[in-house]
Amino acid sequence: MIVKKKFFTFAYPPHEFVFEMGKKLGPLTIAYETYGELNEEKTNGILVLHALTGDSHAAGFYSSEDLKPGWWDNMVGPKKPIDTEKFFVICSNVIGGCMGSTGPASIDPKTNKPFGMRFPFVTIGDMVRAQKRLIDHLGIKKLLAVIGGSMGGMQALEWSVRYPHMVHGVVPIATTAKHSAMAIAFNEVARQAIINDPNWNYGDYYDKLPPIHGQAVARMIGHITYLSDIALRKKFDRSVQDTAYKKNPFDTQFSVSSYLRYQGEKFVNRFDANSFLYLTRATDYFNLAQTHGQGSLVKAFSKAKAKFLVISFSSDWLYPTYQSKELVKALKKNGLEVNFCEIRTDYGHDSFLISNPKLEALVAGFLDNLYETKVKKGKC
Amino acid sequence: MIVKKKFFTFAYPPHEFVFEMGKKLGPLTIAYETYGELNEEKTNGILVLHALTGDSHAAGFYSSEDLKPGWWDNMVGPKKPIDTEKFFVICSNVIGGCMGSTGPASIDPKTNKPFGMRFPFVTIGDMVRAQKRLIDHLGIKKLLAVIGGSMGGMQALEWSVRYPHMVHGVVPIATTAKHSAMAIAFNEVARQAIINDPNWNYGDYYDKLPPIHGQAVARMIGHITYLSDIALRKKFDRSVQDTAYKKNPFDTQFSVSSYLRYQGEKFVNRFDANSFLYLTRATDYFNLAQTHGQGSLVKAFSKAKAKFLVISFSSDWLYPTYQSKELVKALKKNGLEVNFCEIRTDYGHDSFLISNPKLEALVAGFLDNLYETKVKKGKC
Repeated sequence: MIVKKKFFTFAYPPHEFVFEMGKKLGPLTIAYETYGELNEEKTNGILVLHALTGDSHAAGFYSSEDLKPGWWDNMVGPKKPIDTEKFFVICSNVIGGCMGSTGPASIDPKTNKPFGMRFPFVTIGDMVRAQKRLIDHLGIKKLLAVIGGSMGGMQALEWSVRYPHMVHGVVPIATTAKHSAMAIAFNEVARQAIINDPNWNYGDYYDKLPPIHGQAVARMIGHITYLSDIALRKKFDRSVQDTAYKKNPFDTQFSVSSYLRYQGEKFVNRFDANSFLYLTRATDYFNLAQTHGQGSLVKAFSKAKAKFLVISFSSDWLYPTYQSKELVKALKKNGLEVNFCEIRTDYGHDSFLISNPKLEALVAGFLDNLYETKVKKGKC
Repeated sequence: MIVKKKFFTFAYPPHEFVFEMGKKLGPLTIAYETYGELNEEKTNGILVLHALTGDSHAAGFYSSEDLKPGWWDNMVGPKKPIDTEKFFVICSNVIGGCMGSTGPASIDPKTNKPFGMRFPFVTIGDMVRAQKRLIDHLGIKKLLAVIGGSMGGMQALEWSVRYPHMVHGVVPIATTAKHSAMAIAFNEVARQAIINDPNWNYGDYYDKLPPIHGQAVARMIGHITYLSDIALRKKFDRSVQDTAYKKNPFDTQFSVSSYLRYQGEKFVNRFDANSFLYLTRATDYFNLAQTHGQGSLVKAFSKAKAKFLVISFSSDWLYPTYQSKELVKALKKNGLEVNFCEIRTDYGHDSFLISNPKLEALVAGFLDNLYETKVKKGKC
């Protein structure tokens, strides 16, 4: 499947997008990709939402020479769980990011310099409000489903209560209605690693060396939280490597160390440090109950109308199953149709990105059911 | 209880201490404290071993104006679980540290400059071998018990197999025979935070500004791993504070963030960054089975002769209970007398530092039993 990154720029009246925290900006651009064909009735649209450092490239390859498919290529494609022979799949990048959408690294037209820290604070609500413009632009009145893992799951939840009339089905995976103190704590330390790097320079580093050391440390912290004790043990245990990744006299030789450092360095090359600050902050401040239910999650979901499939992973200690169960409980109290499954797996939080027959079957089944009842039936 | 820090300097033939990794150094100094009186037979000695960033000040106050007691004051003192009316308690600082013992911040007599990274690599075995010199110096042939939590527990385990004829009882608390890949990973990231700080300067910062930012981040990472999801939730949840601890435009207002930053800054003032590198490395490389049993923990403990009391904490995810159970299994396979308890508590790894009736009762009971059978009986 050869795909193409697209861009949607909106300068909707009054020409500026009003962020939830009050600032205005415009026009804004969202990078997105689509897979499959939108049917005539425009009823087969599925919006896929990516995690913190993801992008709009969920599936396929950019060219026949491209070796690396999109991040959810096991899930999205012809005859795959999110079947592009049936569905029109849209994957939207988030505003505040750095993968083609307007964010801190974008040029501020007023100054002709990158926004840096002058970019407005972004919330999960802002991301979803911007995505809504994209869905409107595509002429879709109601999405068959919104689906996402981690920060993508937060967006899916936000969609369900902010635009209840626009979604038939919602699939929040490995996510939470609000960050625990521990999740905030890890994000905070990761941000501190960047902010404390002298190269960060209050976010104005775009014409200089970026805060690569701090950013690498931030990524390493995050990366550990995405895995699990057992996943790390199975993958590395205490193995050492002779061809040590030694850059300084104090480097250890444990494979897990080299692996993390490799992940850290790779991240520096593909992601903007300021976007990392903005997006982690958005996840920390995400609080569905507070924003939509005056502190009550049950009340927040009273607005929702969709069917839900909630999925958690047994070894995910960043957003543990008890947090998914809180979602399920609040949804059920509103009489909503909810399917819930905790998938037993060792891969930790990142499990949603890894091919898993159970995950694939659950999502395929849920979407097929929606397809039968909402798309085919609508045609009759 | 008013106590005093003491120092023992040894220049044992051939005047230098040979580190396990081969380097020699001497003379070396160990900071230590003692509480209670050594009996005539010298049979009531208990060696208390501290954790990574601990020191020899386990109990009491340095003066009547001193507001802060030693780190295990709930455990060590008159009529306390480690009862100084019965026992002669020794708490020894570790070499490689920075709390009065010879370490990277000490002056190298050959250059008149701090050792920095030229200090020999230190192992848990080296710490214990140096402590043995101290115990010899105090005239104690056999300790009634060695007891310690976390890195202190590693030393206790090392004592049990390295000097089996010198210990009657061993109490490893919240510890492990080897670090998991996850524990190594967290230490690695913490070290990278320091090493990546330009002020670290390959360890030569003693006449300049130390790597305070990297070190603070390192401490924050560690601190999260010492706590637990539930402990953080109970203490902070998502509370925010108005009097925000704001140093830069991107600081969040979550209490957990301020708390961590406070911990990070406090740590910078009291601990040497290079010692942090050396000691975390020592814990990562600690591997009892490899050093003493050719890879077999059962074989390693075949040398041990002591009675054991192994204690873990249910919410400790840094050294989870399964690691203590591995110790217990290997000890039992050697026919050794082992008591084991997983204490249910929400406080995570740091539980061993917090007053806990169950912990106190277990330790008191174990030591009383040793006292009755080894000290009193010996007198008869």
